[in-house]
Amino acid sequence: MTASTAHKAPEYPPVDPRVEALVNEVIGRVADKWTMIVLDVLAENGELRFTRIGQLSGGVSQKMLTQTLRQMERDGLVIRTVHPVIPPKVEYRLTDLGFSLAEAFCGVWTWAEASLDRIEQARAAFDKAKAG
Amino acid sequence: MTASTAHKAPEYPPVDPRVEALVNEVIGRVADKWTMIVLDVLAENGELRFTRIGQLSGGVSQKMLTQTLRQMERDGLVIRTVHPVIPPKVEYRLTDLGFSLAEAFCGVWTWAEASLDRIEQARAAFDKAKAG
Repeated sequence: MTASTAHKAPEYPPVDPRVEALVNEVIGRVADKWTMIVLDVLAENGELRFTRIGQLSGGVSQKMLTQTLRQMERDGLVIRTVHPVIPPKVEYRLTDLGFSLAEAFCGVWTWAEASLDRIEQARAAFDKAKAG
Repeated sequence: MTASTAHKAPEYPPVDPRVEALVNEVIGRVADKWTMIVLDVLAENGELRFTRIGQLSGGVSQKMLTQTLRQMERDGLVIRTVHPVIPPKVEYRLTDLGFSLAEAFCGVWTWAEASLDRIEQARAAFDKAKAG
């Protein structure tokens, strides 16, 4: 949550609109399925090559993975290292900032694991109500 | 984090692949900019009409908001109430499950607020390096 959960009568000073716009932009960037999955894969496995990240991320296209890693590198979440060997070896690992985001997302993974049954029940009930 | 994809030497039992696929699917659904923003808006403001959610979410199209709210209703995150008045009044509020997800996302909002400067610096450095 941005600040408190005040109902209609805000009890605290409004957030700077510039900060709010930036936070929304950052949330828009990081609240992305592939960003979350790549963060998880790199947090659990350390430094990895592109192909290996793709294998562990399951179902990501090469184009989408390239784009995701490039944005994560630009945002300072990931470090891309080109090892000077032949053939060149390129590896990716999380920065401290990337690790801190992976940690922040932890609660969402935990929530997803804990809430699977309730979500499936809700979906079944919703679909039944719409069909009935 | 999902449980482990530990680095070559797993230290704990592997996750049931069915559970892992479901968790990834749920993460793909909820790790969505508009879902996160609508959760935040409803957590902070209580029950709201469609139009008001749109105003407070800033920049969401009517079509995208309709789709987001419908998926959230189907997943059991949101309750849609049609009040029997003339003209009919339709309102949305979070379920307990929705509140628990909003709470889990809290860490990500906090991270975004705390990390703005570092992200902006990283972007500037990245763009400068690419331009140079």
